[in-house]
Amino acid sequence: MTDFPRIMALTAGTTAPKDVYGARAAAQVTLMDAGLPVPKAWGLSLDAVKAISNEDFPAEWPFLEELSTGCLVSVRASPVAREWGGPDALLNLGMNQATCDILKAPLGEEAAVALYARFVQDYSVKVARLDPEWFDELYILHTKNDKVDYEAVLGSSLALYDQNVGELFPQEPVRQLRKALRSFVKAWDGTTARILRMAQGAPEDAGLGLIIQEMALGLGRGESGAGIAQFVSSRTGEKKAHGRYLSQSQGREATDDQAKAHFLSKDKRGPSLEDVCPEAFETLRSYSAEARKACGDAMQLEFTVHDGAVAILDAVPAERSGRAAMAISVRLVEDGIKSKEDVLMGIDPRSMNEVLHPLVDPRADRQVITTGISSSPGAATGKIVFTANAAQASAAREEPCILVRIETTPEDVRGMHSAQAVLTAKGGRDSHAAVVARTIGVPCIVGVSDMKVDVRGKVLTLPNGVVLRAGDVITVDASEGEVLLGAPKLVQPNLGGAFNTFMTWADETRKLGVRANADTPQDARMARDFNVDGIGLVRTEHMFFEAGRLNVMRELIFADTDEDRQAALNLLLPMQRSDFIELFEIMQGLPVCIRLLDPPLHEFLPHSRDEMQSLADAMGLPLSKITARVEDLREFNPMLGTRGVRLGIMVPEIYNMQARAIFEAAVHVHKNGSDLISPEIMVPLVSANREVELVRASVDSVFSAVKNETGVQLSYTLGSMVETPRAALRAGEIARSSEFFSFGTNDLTQMTYGLSRDDSGRFMRDYVSHGVFEEDPFHSLDVDGVGELLLMACERGRAERKDLLLGLCGEHGGDPQSVWFCHKVGLNYVSCSPFRTPIAKLAAAQAAILDVKK
Amino acid sequence: MTDFPRIMALTAGTTAPKDVYGARAAAQVTLMDAGLPVPKAWGLSLDAVKAISNEDFPAEWPFLEELSTGCLVSVRASPVAREWGGPDALLNLGMNQATCDILKAPLGEEAAVALYARFVQDYSVKVARLDPEWFDELYILHTKNDKVDYEAVLGSSLALYDQNVGELFPQEPVRQLRKALRSFVKAWDGTTARILRMAQGAPEDAGLGLIIQEMALGLGRGESGAGIAQFVSSRTGEKKAHGRYLSQSQGREATDDQAKAHFLSKDKRGPSLEDVCPEAFETLRSYSAEARKACGDAMQLEFTVHDGAVAILDAVPAERSGRAAMAISVRLVEDGIKSKEDVLMGIDPRSMNEVLHPLVDPRADRQVITTGISSSPGAATGKIVFTANAAQASAAREEPCILVRIETTPEDVRGMHSAQAVLTAKGGRDSHAAVVARTIGVPCIVGVSDMKVDVRGKVLTLPNGVVLRAGDVITVDASEGEVLLGAPKLVQPNLGGAFNTFMTWADETRKLGVRANADTPQDARMARDFNVDGIGLVRTEHMFFEAGRLNVMRELIFADTDEDRQAALNLLLPMQRSDFIELFEIMQGLPVCIRLLDPPLHEFLPHSRDEMQSLADAMGLPLSKITARVEDLREFNPMLGTRGVRLGIMVPEIYNMQARAIFEAAVHVHKNGSDLISPEIMVPLVSANREVELVRASVDSVFSAVKNETGVQLSYTLGSMVETPRAALRAGEIARSSEFFSFGTNDLTQMTYGLSRDDSGRFMRDYVSHGVFEEDPFHSLDVDGVGELLLMACERGRAERKDLLLGLCGEHGGDPQSVWFCHKVGLNYVSCSPFRTPIAKLAAAQAAILDVKK
Repeated sequence: MTDFPRIMALTAGTTAPKDVYGARAAAQVTLMDAGLPVPKAWGLSLDAVKAISNEDFPAEWPFLEELSTGCLVSVRASPVAREWGGPDALLNLGMNQATCDILKAPLGEEAAVALYARFVQDYSVKVARLDPEWFDELYILHTKNDKVDYEAVLGSSLALYDQNVGELFPQEPVRQLRKALRSFVKAWDGTTARILRMAQGAPEDAGLGLIIQEMALGLGRGESGAGIAQFVSSRTGEKKAHGRYLSQSQGREATDDQAKAHFLSKDKRGPSLEDVCPEAFETLRSYSAEARKACGDAMQLEFTVHDGAVAILDAVPAERSGRAAMAISVRLVEDGIKSKEDVLMGIDPRSMNEVLHPLVDPRADRQVITTGISSSPGAATGKIVFTANAAQASAAREEPCILVRIETTPEDVRGMHSAQAVLTAKGGRDSHAAVVARTIGVPCIVGVSDMKVDVRGKVLTLPNGVVLRAGDVITVDASEGEVLLGAPKLVQPNLGGAFNTFMTWADETRKLGVRANADTPQDARMARDFNVDGIGLVRTEHMFFEAGRLNVMRELIFADTDEDRQAALNLLLPMQRSDFIELFEIMQGLPVCIRLLDPPLHEFLPHSRDEMQSLADAMGLPLSKITARVEDLREFNPMLGTRGVRLGIMVPEIYNMQARAIFEAAVHVHKNGSDLISPEIMVPLVSANREVELVRASVDSVFSAVKNETGVQLSYTLGSMVETPRAALRAGEIARSSEFFSFGTNDLTQMTYGLSRDDSGRFMRDYVSHGVFEEDPFHSLDVDGVGELLLMACERGRAERKDLLLGLCGEHGGDPQSVWFCHKVGLNYVSCSPFRTPIAKLAAAQAAILDVKK
Repeated sequence: MTDFPRIMALTAGTTAPKDVYGARAAAQVTLMDAGLPVPKAWGLSLDAVKAISNEDFPAEWPFLEELSTGCLVSVRASPVAREWGGPDALLNLGMNQATCDILKAPLGEEAAVALYARFVQDYSVKVARLDPEWFDELYILHTKNDKVDYEAVLGSSLALYDQNVGELFPQEPVRQLRKALRSFVKAWDGTTARILRMAQGAPEDAGLGLIIQEMALGLGRGESGAGIAQFVSSRTGEKKAHGRYLSQSQGREATDDQAKAHFLSKDKRGPSLEDVCPEAFETLRSYSAEARKACGDAMQLEFTVHDGAVAILDAVPAERSGRAAMAISVRLVEDGIKSKEDVLMGIDPRSMNEVLHPLVDPRADRQVITTGISSSPGAATGKIVFTANAAQASAAREEPCILVRIETTPEDVRGMHSAQAVLTAKGGRDSHAAVVARTIGVPCIVGVSDMKVDVRGKVLTLPNGVVLRAGDVITVDASEGEVLLGAPKLVQPNLGGAFNTFMTWADETRKLGVRANADTPQDARMARDFNVDGIGLVRTEHMFFEAGRLNVMRELIFADTDEDRQAALNLLLPMQRSDFIELFEIMQGLPVCIRLLDPPLHEFLPHSRDEMQSLADAMGLPLSKITARVEDLREFNPMLGTRGVRLGIMVPEIYNMQARAIFEAAVHVHKNGSDLISPEIMVPLVSANREVELVRASVDSVFSAVKNETGVQLSYTLGSMVETPRAALRAGEIARSSEFFSFGTNDLTQMTYGLSRDDSGRFMRDYVSHGVFEEDPFHSLDVDGVGELLLMACERGRAERKDLLLGLCGEHGGDPQSVWFCHKVGLNYVSCSPFRTPIAKLAAAQAAILDVKK
C-alpha cells in the first residue's frame, strides 16, 4: 500500500472529495454517513487511475483477500462530475471456476453457472473487446425448449475467449482486475468519449476515478433482485414513486425495456415491488428520504434486494425536466433541507430554456406531416435550413429557423444553438442530436424515419408526397413528437406555482435589473408576464416593416422635396404614436427605452427586379428611378455604413417624427388616467459626443413643442447605445450628453473583432475547434476584449456622471456567463428577449449569491 | 486711453505679440527694430477690435491730433496669421474738404482733389457698401478727351453718397474712423470670410487685429509712387529682383494688371524703378537684405517712394513655390540667419506635396485635347469622376481619379483631397479650385472654357469632338496647363540640390523611422530614391492581380482537391519568389516587411456575368460552378469577413507558399552575393494571439525546411498587423508571439468608428461641416479614439516584450499630424506611399525638434 496511497476504503466518516475520487465515491460516503446499507467499497483516486494508465499498478490490493473467498466485486467509473459519463460498470469481477463452485451452495448450481457464463461474456466484450454478437449466438445455439443450457454456454464462451484472445480465460482475480482497469482507462481516453464529455463541460484533460465495490448479488433465495427508484416525478417534480425492479437481476438490468421489470409501487399496468415485497418497498422509500436529506436533493437510488433485505449501491440526483427541477428545489427549501441560495445556485440557468419554450395552442389547426421521437420538449416555428452554417446565417439575420439533418455530429452543435428547433431523420433518445438538444434546451425530434433529407439539393421529401425546401416554414411540436406545416399559434406553457416561487426568490436575491427587448405589443405582454423590470430595447424599425407601413417608409425614401418627405412623415407619425401608446399601456409605468431608427435606408427597399417593378407600379414612378435609388443606397459594408445616428443627423426629420410620436404617446397615456411616464430615448451607433448633442438639441425642441401644445409637464431621458469601440473609449465625453448608456454588445463584438456576424459562420467552427477563440464571442461575451471596453466605458461614464444608468441590450443579456460579467462590472440592468429573461434573472441571482460568498 | 488700453503705438523696442496685435503689427515692429523707415503706426489688439464689434469705442484716439493737421492714415487688417486674410486696406482715412485744401499746396490742386474724390469712392464702396459701378460710371461721365474733371467727380460722388446713405459725407475723421472700423469688423465676421480662413486653419472664433498707420502718400513732386518688391524668385528660390512699381500710386495699385507698372530692376520688357530712380532701387535692395535678417526669411516688401525717399509699409514672407521654399531655407541656413531646426520647422510638410508631384515624361507622346490655366503644378493620371463623392469612393477603392467640375465650392474640398488632379471649366488663378488645389498640393487646371461638363449625364464634351465619360482615363499636366488623353509616362521631377540638403537635415534630425509602402519594383525603386529606412508594407495580394497570375489564383480558388490546390500553389510559388527577389535586391539589405495575403478570396473572382462566362470557358468549367462559388464567397460585410489571418488559418497552404517564396528569395539574393537579410513577415487582421501562434507554427516549419534544403543560416521575424480594436486591447498577449507590431490605422479607424471608408463619403462631408468629427479620421488619425487604442497597444506590447518593434503603415503615415502623434507615442517608424515619405520625414524632424524644445 505504501507505494500506492491513492486507494481508499470508503466508510462512514471518511472524506472522499469529488475532485480526488470522483462524484460516485463521494456519494457513497455520503450514503454511508446517512446510515444507509451500502456494500463495502474502495475508491481509486484520479491520480491512481492515471498511474494505472502508465502501467503503474499497486503492489497490493486491499480487497484481494475478499476476492479469494467467493466474494465478487464491481468496478464502476467515478468521474468528477456525473454528467461526464464514463465506461459502463463491470460486475461480478473475481468470478472464476473456484468461486462458481463456492456459489453453487447459496445460489443453486444453475444460477451459479449462469452467473459465471454471464461474467465471461461481459468480460470478453467489455475488457477483451470481442464481438458481442458471437455470445448472443451462443445462447441461441444452446437454448432448447426455452431452456438455456448454461453449462454449454459457459464451455463455449470460455472456448471462444481462448480462441480469439489466444490465452485461457484468466482465473486469478488480480489478473482480471488489472486487465479490467486497463480497459476502463482505454475507454475513458477514447476520442468519442472525450468529445462527449467535453460537450458536457469537461476539461480536455479530465481524469477518471474508479470505485471497486463488493457485489450485492441480487440473485439467490428469497426475494432478490435489483432496480432503480426515485420518489419524485421526472416530468413535474411531484412526489411519486417512479422506477423499475427486476427479480434475480443485477445492476441496471431492470431498466432494459425488454426485461419486463416490475413497477415500483402498485400499478394497474402490472406487478410491482410493493406487491411482491412491501417491506422492501417501504424500506426503500425511507432510504430515499434519508438520501434526500443527506445529499440535499431528490435522488434516484440504485438498489438490490437480497432475500428481502435492501442494499443501496448508488444515488444520483433524480432525473428531472427543467420544470421538475424547480418544483423539487422549491420543496427542498420548504422542507428546510436547503437554503434558497443553494437551490438558486443548484440550477443551471441554461436548463430553463426548456421550461420556457412555448407550446402549440391546443385550439390551433394542426397539419401534421410526420412524426418522430420527442427528445427535447417545446415547440418552435421557423424556416427550414439544412446546414449548421445556414442556421447560423439565419440567426444572424434574426430569422427563426429549423435545422433539418439526417443526423447531427459535433460539427453541428453551433448550428443547433442558432436554430429554434432540430429535426433528424435518424437517431433515438440518446443520439447526439437528442443529447445536445436537451442540454441546450432546443426542441428536438429525432428518428423521423420516413423523412428523406437531400442536404445538397436542400429538399426534404415525405412518403405522403409532401416536399419541402429550404426557406419553407414548418413548426416542430417536440413535446408531441409531431412536425406541422406552417406556423400555428404558439402559447406560453403554464409554468405553475413552483416556477413563480422560484423566480420570486431569484428576484429577491438579484441586484442586477432584468429588462426585456420588445418590439411589439405581444413581446411586451410576454415581458410583463415574466415580471421584468422594464423594456430595455424597443427596435423601432421593426414597426416600419409591418404591412401598410413599408410603403409609406418607401415613399419617405423616394421623396424628392421637403414637402413629399414631410407628407410621408405625417403619415408615419400617428402609426408610431399608436405603437408607443400600446407599449406604454402594457408596461404600466415601467421604464421603456426606445431606440431611434437604426438600419440603413436600403433595408426598406426591394431588392429583386420583380419587387422593384411592383414598387415602381405602386408608386407611379419609372422603374429606372427605383433601381437608381436602390443602387445609390447600396453599401459595401452596410454594417459600417450610413445608419443609426448618422442617418439621424443627415435626415433629422425622421428622429424628430419619432420623438414627437414618443412624447405624444406619453401624454396620451397620461391623459387616459395613467401615471406620467418618462420615456428613455436611445441614440444608436454613436461614435462621438457631438452626435448625441445634435440629436439632443433636435429632440429637445420637439419636446418643448409637445409640452407647449399639450400643457403636460412631461420629462424624458436621452442616452447613447454604446456599440462602437470609439463610443466606449470616449465614454467620459459622451456621458456629458447622455443620461444612460446601453451596451449593444452584438455590434460592439463585431467591431472589436472586425468580424461580421453574418459572415463569421464560414470560419467560426474552425476557429472554436482550433481553440483560436475559446467560445463564439456572439454567444458568450468576450470578457477579455469586448469586456474591457465595456468596463472602460462604465468607469469613464460614471466618472463623468455619477448616476449614469448602465444597461446591456442584445443577445448576451440572456447568456448566463455574460450576465455574471454584467453583474460584476456593476451594470444597472441587462435586457434580452422576453423568453430569456428568467434565465437572466436566475444568472443574476447566482451572481449576487457568489458575490456575498466571496 | 485708460478705458481702452489695447491700442499701442508701434515703435522700435516695443513688443507687439502676434497673438495679441496680429502678424502685421508684429512685422511692423520688427522692421522698425531693424532701423527701416516705417511710417508711424498704432496697433489695435484683437481684444480692442472685439470691443469695437460690441460698439465699445475708446474715449480717445492717440492719433487724432495728427489727423486734424492734414495727415492721413490707413487702416489695415492684422490677423494672427497672414494667410487668414482679412478685409482690404482702407487708405487716406481722415480725408475731407479741409485736408484736401491743405494738401493742395504739396500735391497740387488737381492731385489733392483727385485724392479726395478717390477716398470718397473708396469709403463709399468699402464702408458704406455702395455699388462700385456707380462710381465707375461717374468717371466715364466726367471724362472728356481723356481728361478727368476731378472736381465734377468729387461733387457727384459726394451727392451720390448723400442720396444713398441719407446723410452728408462725414467730414470728422473720428466719425470716418468709427464707421470704417465697424465695416472691418463686419467684413471679418462674414460667412464667406470665415469659411475661407477656416480652410487656412483658422479657429472658428479667430479674432482680428488692426493697424492704423500714417499714410506715405506716394503722390506729389519728385519721383513718388508705390510698389512691392522681393529679391528671390518665387518659382525657384534663386536670388532675383522681382516686383512692380507705379509712379504716383498708392497701396498695391502697382500689382493691378491694367496698371502698366514699372518692373523693379532693368528689364527688356519695359521701364523699371532701377531706370527711373536707381538710388531708390538700391536702397530697396539693402532694405530687403535688412528685412531678411530681421525677419529671418526672404521677404516681400510693400514700399512707397516719396520724392525719391523709400518708406517701407509692410513685409510678408516672399511668395514661393514648394521648391523655392526649400532653396530659400537652405540659403538662410548657409548665411547663418537661421538654424537648421528653424528652417525645418518653417515649412509646412503638406506644402511639399506640390514639389513631389511627377511630371509628364518630356519624351512621351502627348495627345493634348484641351488647355486651361495652370493653377497648381504637377501631373497626374486617373479616371474621370464628376462629383466629390465619386472621387472619395474612387480613393477608397484605391483607384486614381481626376475630379472634373464646372467650378468647385467648399463642398468639393473633400473630393479634391481624394483626387489626383482637378479640372474646372470656369475660374481663374484665384478661383476656389485654384486656391484650394495649391493649398493641398493637388495639380489643377482651371478655366478650361471650351469644356462642356454634364455632371448628371457624367459626360464631358470638347469642341474638337472629343467626348469623355466617367471612368475614362486622362492625364492632367497642370504644370503646362494641358489635358492629355490616356496615360503617358510620368517621371520624377529633378528636385535639385536644395531638396536633397533639406531632406538630409530632416534625416539627421528625426528620431522616427520612415519607411515606404511598396508593392512593386517601381514603388521600391522610388522609395530607394527617396532614401527611406526600409519597406514597411508589401501588400502581396497586389502581386496576384497581375496579368497571368489572376488565372492561377482563380484556379486555386476553384480547386476541388488538395492536389489541384497544390498544383495552383506550385505555379504561384516561383512567381511570388521572383517578386520578392526583385524587392530584396532593390532594397539592398534594408528591412522589408511583407504582409501575408489579406483580402477575401472573392476579390479575385469575376463579378459580372460576362466575366464569369469567360472564366468558365477558360477553365473548362460549367458556368453554374463559377456562379455558385462566387455566390458562396459573397459576404454581407466583406471588410469584416473571411480575410486576413482567418483565411490563413482555414487554408494554411497559401501562407505556407508565401513563406516559402519569401525564404527562398532571401536565400537566392544571399547566394548572389548580397548580405543575408532577415525578412519581416506580417500577419494581417489579427484579433487573438492564438491566430499568430498558429501561423507562426506553420511558417516556422516552412522555415526549417528551407534552411535544411539550402543550408543557409537564415533568420526572420514574424509580427502582427494591429488593425482590429481587439488586437490593440490584447496587445500584451499578442506580443508574446509577435516580434513586431504594425498598426493598420485604416482598418483600425474603420472598426473603432464602426465606419466603412468605402461608404463614409455619403455623410462624411456633413459630419465634418457640422463639427461632428473635427476632421475626417481617414485623413488625419483620430488621436482621441483610435490614438488611445494605439497607445494602449504600444504600452501593453512593450510591457510584454521590451524590444517590440512598432510601426504604422497606412495613409496616416504620410499625414504630418499623425506622424507627430506616432513620434510622441514612441513608434519606431511610420510607413507610407513613397511619394509621401519626404512629408513624413519632415514631419518627423519637426516632431523631434518640438520634443527637444519642450
